[in-house]
Amino acid sequence: YRLDLCTWAEVEQYLTKCKGIILPIGSTEQHGPTGAIGTDALTAEAVALEVGKRAGVLVAPTQAYGMAEHHLGFPGTMSLQSSTLLNVVHDLLLSLARHGFERVFVVNGHGGNIATVKAAFSQAYKTVLNLKLPVAAGFRCKLVSWFMVPDVFKEAKARYGNLEGQHATPSEIAVTLFLEPNLQSKQRQLPEPAPAGPIYDYQDFRQRYPDGRMGSDPFLAKPDHGEIFLDKAAIALTEDLLNFLKEL
Amino acid sequence: YRLDLCTWAEVEQYLTKCKGIILPIGSTEQHGPTGAIGTDALTAEAVALEVGKRAGVLVAPTQAYGMAEHHLGFPGTMSLQSSTLLNVVHDLLLSLARHGFERVFVVNGHGGNIATVKAAFSQAYKTVLNLKLPVAAGFRCKLVSWFMVPDVFKEAKARYGNLEGQHATPSEIAVTLFLEPNLQSKQRQLPEPAPAGPIYDYQDFRQRYPDGRMGSDPFLAKPDHGEIFLDKAAIALTEDLLNFLKEL
Amino acid sequence: YRLDLCTWAEVEQYLTKCKGIILPIGSTEQHGPTGAIGTDALTAEAVALEVGKRAGVLVAPTQAYGMAEHHLGFPGTMSLQSSTLLNVVHDLLLSLARHGFERVFVVNGHGGNIATVKAAFSQAYKTVLNLKLPVAAGFRCKLVSWFMVPDVFKEAKARYGNLEGQHATPSEIAVTLFLEPNLQSKQRQLPEPAPAGPIYDYQDFRQRYPDGRMGSDPFLAKPDHGEIFLDKAAIALTEDLLNFLKEL
Amino acid sequence: YRLDLCTWAEVEQYLTKCKGIILPIGSTEQHGPTGAIGTDALTAEAVALEVGKRAGVLVAPTQAYGMAEHHLGFPGTMSLQSSTLLNVVHDLLLSLARHGFERVFVVNGHGGNIATVKAAFSQAYKTVLNLKLPVAAGFRCKLVSWFMVPDVFKEAKARYGNLEGQHATPSEIAVTLFLEPNLQSKQRQLPEPAPAGPIYDYQDFRQRYPDGRMGSDPFLAKPDHGEIFLDKAAIALTEDLLNFLKEL
Amino acid sequence: YRLDLCTWAEVEQYLTKCKGIILPIGSTEQHGPTGAIGTDALTAEAVALEVGKRAGVLVAPTQAYGMAEHHLGFPGTMSLQSSTLLNVVHDLLLSLARHGFERVFVVNGHGGNIATVKAAFSQAYKTVLNLKLPVAAGFRCKLVSWFMVPDVFKEAKARYGNLEGQHATPSEIAVTLFLEPNLQSKQRQLPEPAPAGPIYDYQDFRQRYPDGRMGSDPFLAKPDHGEIFLDKAAIALTEDLLNFLKEL
Amino acid sequence: YRLDLCTWAEVEQYLTKCKGIILPIGSTEQHGPTGAIGTDALTAEAVALEVGKRAGVLVAPTQAYGMAEHHLGFPGTMSLQSSTLLNVVHDLLLSLARHGFERVFVVNGHGGNIATVKAAFSQAYKTVLNLKLPVAAGFRCKLVSWFMVPDVFKEAKARYGNLEGQHATPSEIAVTLFLEPNLQSKQRQLPEPAPAGPIYDYQDFRQRYPDGRMGSDPFLAKPDHGEIFLDKAAIALTEDLLNFLKEL
Ligand code: NI
Ligand code: NI
Ligand code: NI
Ligand code: NI
Ligand code: NI
Ligand code: NI
Repeated sequence: YRLDLCTWAEVEQYLTKCKGIILPIGSTEQHGPTGAIGTDALTAEAVALEVGKRAGVLVAPTQAYGMAEHHLGFPGTMSLQSSTLLNVVHDLLLSLARHGFERVFVVNGHGGNIATVKAAFSQAYKTVLNLKLPVAAGFRCKLVSWFMVPDVFKEAKARYGNLEGQHATPSEIAVTLFLEPNLQSKQRQLPEPAPAGPIYDYQDFRQRYPDGRMGSDPFLAKPDHGEIFLDKAAIALTEDLLNFLKEL
Repeated sequence: YRLDLCTWAEVEQYLTKCKGIILPIGSTEQHGPTGAIGTDALTAEAVALEVGKRAGVLVAPTQAYGMAEHHLGFPGTMSLQSSTLLNVVHDLLLSLARHGFERVFVVNGHGGNIATVKAAFSQAYKTVLNLKLPVAAGFRCKLVSWFMVPDVFKEAKARYGNLEGQHATPSEIAVTLFLEPNLQSKQRQLPEPAPAGPIYDYQDFRQRYPDGRMGSDPFLAKPDHGEIFLDKAAIALTEDLLNFLKEL
Repeated sequence: YRLDLCTWAEVEQYLTKCKGIILPIGSTEQHGPTGAIGTDALTAEAVALEVGKRAGVLVAPTQAYGMAEHHLGFPGTMSLQSSTLLNVVHDLLLSLARHGFERVFVVNGHGGNIATVKAAFSQAYKTVLNLKLPVAAGFRCKLVSWFMVPDVFKEAKARYGNLEGQHATPSEIAVTLFLEPNLQSKQRQLPEPAPAGPIYDYQDFRQRYPDGRMGSDPFLAKPDHGEIFLDKAAIALTEDLLNFLKEL
Repeated sequence: YRLDLCTWAEVEQYLTKCKGIILPIGSTEQHGPTGAIGTDALTAEAVALEVGKRAGVLVAPTQAYGMAEHHLGFPGTMSLQSSTLLNVVHDLLLSLARHGFERVFVVNGHGGNIATVKAAFSQAYKTVLNLKLPVAAGFRCKLVSWFMVPDVFKEAKARYGNLEGQHATPSEIAVTLFLEPNLQSKQRQLPEPAPAGPIYDYQDFRQRYPDGRMGSDPFLAKPDHGEIFLDKAAIALTEDLLNFLKEL
Repeated sequence: YRLDLCTWAEVEQYLTKCKGIILPIGSTEQHGPTGAIGTDALTAEAVALEVGKRAGVLVAPTQAYGMAEHHLGFPGTMSLQSSTLLNVVHDLLLSLARHGFERVFVVNGHGGNIATVKAAFSQAYKTVLNLKLPVAAGFRCKLVSWFMVPDVFKEAKARYGNLEGQHATPSEIAVTLFLEPNLQSKQRQLPEPAPAGPIYDYQDFRQRYPDGRMGSDPFLAKPDHGEIFLDKAAIALTEDLLNFLKEL
Repeated sequence: YRLDLCTWAEVEQYLTKCKGIILPIGSTEQHGPTGAIGTDALTAEAVALEVGKRAGVLVAPTQAYGMAEHHLGFPGTMSLQSSTLLNVVHDLLLSLARHGFERVFVVNGHGGNIATVKAAFSQAYKTVLNLKLPVAAGFRCKLVSWFMVPDVFKEAKARYGNLEGQHATPSEIAVTLFLEPNLQSKQRQLPEPAPAGPIYDYQDFRQRYPDGRMGSDPFLAKPDHGEIFLDKAAIALTEDLLNFLKEL
């Protein structure tokens, strides 16, 4: 179910049976003093692969870089501008549309990508219609963010209460601890976080949230929580995806 | 040495000792009837990680999508337009320059990326100077393609002769067999390939190279060859990188 | 409080006392068989002017055209592509930042604008920082959609229940009836609307929602409801704006 | 005749009888120490509505923001870059072309828009042909600037002589006084204006024309002059429009 | 006085004495059944070189390609889109500004370039200010079209009356006959031209002006007329340029 | 064989017999303390015209400006950004494709253009396919750089050894001396050049190569060498072109 391990002939075969594909998109950005910079890509990829396995749907490679301009005040953050990410998503969707994929399920790991990905859907629909691709009448894209799945969010609130926070959250860190056990060695007790609040530019962000956390206590995260979050996300999104594929 | 597994605080620390970073860039495109679509990303990432380990230099996440417009005639190929890829590389370089990275070593797995990445370097230099970033006086980028390393190329010619070909080559396939042993099950004897020749648009490409191969016989590839290619690439590029870092 | 009726000298004077400004953004798009094409611009402008009056804050001219690509299947819809709207908002924000405005309160009348306007904020912050404008340290933008104000939404649900729907809603139509009484002559009983559902491209939209309505019954709208919605929106957003201006 | 007060069904009906539409475009920019910042949008809109009424042709909403880069030295000016305005006009024209409008009559209120709008026409023609829209063979756009109508210009010269000047002219101010009588309270005797001359960048502009006027004395403007200018513009442009609609 | 024949050291020296430079811009487009496709570039270059010689001002190489979209219906026309030409002119102006050139005198040979070049000036001024280049306070550009010089235009009217027309005019053809005597062999009596009229897209253009001429009779052109036009253009533009250089 | 001296009718005729065209592209950039700034355009044009004459193939006007960002540290260099040049080449190729040209042979005079021109080919192929131009099935572009022709390179090495260097080389200077004999007066003995090395941004370039030369001794150049280089380039490229035209 990993596109990158398929041959083109296998994809051609797959398309005779299924027109759906999963496209994971993450971000490469600071996640507080103890969280991994790759958190959003690692988690989006893991969720996507799990959903792909359960639904029997192909998973494209993860776009590891997203729109993380507001995190650029912290070393290691690598961000695409909105306009660039818009074009990336547009071009990938167009590639898929050309091959006859009709349902693209974008599994997202980063809140900052949402606006731009939605804008990209709109541009892609327009290009597909303009080019009169054979797939035009049925080409549809859906964006889901695994951390916004209701069951995931409820679980996080139940476990961590307000200390779930809004960035570098224990729920996403837990998933990375489950995926990359070595990351546990970075975990340590942290001082009280800056309270969650608005997001403006990256200088303001660093001043407002000096260690990168927005109201979260990632020290609460444990690997086994991560396994549970991953499972809850996969259950809900697999159902979502199957409905999306069945949609007329 | 994987940036995505570091925290921002670790990167801050790292930058006090080393200003270099490795950025792998691949492509997601057909590699003949038996080769994996992710070949160029898998191999670029593996080489980059190996060089990073040997040189003690951070490796950023792999940009899995590159410029593969001429492969769009084969299902599964996902391509960024040149102008999009140019902006992707520009934005990533700018992010790094902001943090004080002075040497970006781009490890490439796909010939089709070369022109665009070079164009992106030129745009990035301009922006860095325009913004008068503190790093401006010392910011430099270098593009290396692992498959063009002389020792790799010589080894490939010695092992496969003309059947190395120009796309879906046994050398790159061998590396993927070493990295993902399951891929061996796809290997099979193939008919004589279309001879290597010019590359124009994707319709012409598919007509000229009906199964996607350009003069290559990937069935010659063996996992242990892959290990050797990987090692030869890593040896040469590690030296290259260390010289690049020492350059005044 | 209308910027377009001020002189530059008055604006210069105003800036010595207040750094805030309201920017209304609408859309020019079909609103069902009986709703006005200008609904989103008319309502956003009315809310913005009411908030400006109550808060004593300048209101810039309304950007009457927004991102309405999915409505292009209906005659009269005039839409900017996402990338265009992104640049429009970026340029307007930059103009304001140059003059020393520090808080831009964007009052939006159309759901389809939200993603793009947020993407534009991110680009604008970046440019403001890159240009090192004097205002850089304090420049902030906030997007509010009047129809998503909780008290407005609650009122609409209370009055119309599920027939509020998702597009060409009785609540927005009510506001236009209050603002432009002549529009009442267009009101008429309509057949049951297509149920609300997903939005993809404009061909799909017209097929799915043949008369342009998404689950709404705009015939329920009355001018006096409109006055109430306007007031509720103005109350909540005025408070929002005043807090935004006070924010450190 | 206001598009924003029509329903899509009315537009569909209208298109069976007339393929023309008027698109007003203004600017939001300084107009001297006593002139309204919205002068160019207010006047373009008023002229457009008057022409629409007389000719029985639909009038689209006013694009209130234009290319006013050279006025950015004065607070309150809000400008789109040329490249942005080009895309705005392009996208609006394309929206109209899709619906079957064949004659777009752009009524302009600002000299600084002319070059960019013309460039946009050329891009729009190209896109319409590239997309092979049904309307392609007959799609035509015409730009008229109300203040350049010979009868308007002659009248202004007759009334104000050289003190008509080139920016913040008494003729355009007179129209705003007629449209918005409250603006009369801002009128006052002004010192001799800087003589009209060339326009370069906005810093140079403010140095050259310290109060924003280019050789004009807007204190000469009276509301009843405005009514006359409006009428003369409407007479000439209505004839122009009717000829444009009749053109084979 | 040809920049392309100078060394950089000579330019450095030149800049200590003069901050002006001439930039010729032409077009490569049909000029009727007997006129040369390069007419606009050949004439702009000749005028520019003559003015440069007389004024002692450097002349940059000719940008041979301009905005000629409406001529694309005739084989041999090679056109840049408006947005492309805008960027070309922007980049060239920025290059000159970086070196300290303060007055760029653009000598144009093609009406279709005017709008775009003016838009480019505005973008270039903005970039120069944004970058705070040392030259920012004094950087100015001026566009002149040799065929619109009053003395040239009067001479053409005197010689050819209405048969001067609007495209493929005898005046511009005469200049090419003077510059390239071999072109005389192409001259021949032509049927009455289509009358001059509006310009829309390239399909409409070819239908309206089937042989490419707009109301002109290029057979009236003689080489010695060309010499006179060239001289009249050079006299007027040399004076223009000298005034431009002296402007404070 | 010069397109700019043809009429459109002659081009229409030509296209019935030959679908090929030559497009020369140069650069306007420093070439050391004694070399002409126009070297790359002068030489590309001369080679292109010679090849055109020998092969009987039309030669389009020279695009005199290329991507020379790294030379901007030297006065007189005029450079297009990569993204701009990409669009220039794209637009010119599209113009040619529209007319039915099937083989575009781009003769290049500047190493810095190569990456961008290749990227442009890829974009142009895509547009040609997207527009379904009649020529789509056979449209092909080929980039050749005259100074990289093996026989030219060998001759240069034989004559100048290592002092051929990498920029402002005696071989390219020799061609300019042959074309423009007046340039000989600038020739003089120069101090030992900085050794050839890497190219980064333009500040770094000027520091690394203080007089603009990269390891070259242009004083070795003689006009008669230039004639030989020109001839060798023309022989090889004429053959190349004829093969390109014959290619199925
Ligand atoms: Ni995250
Ligand atoms: Ni490969
Ligand atoms: Ni609405
Ligand atoms: Ni005005
Ligand atoms: Ni001409
Ligand atoms: Ni050169």
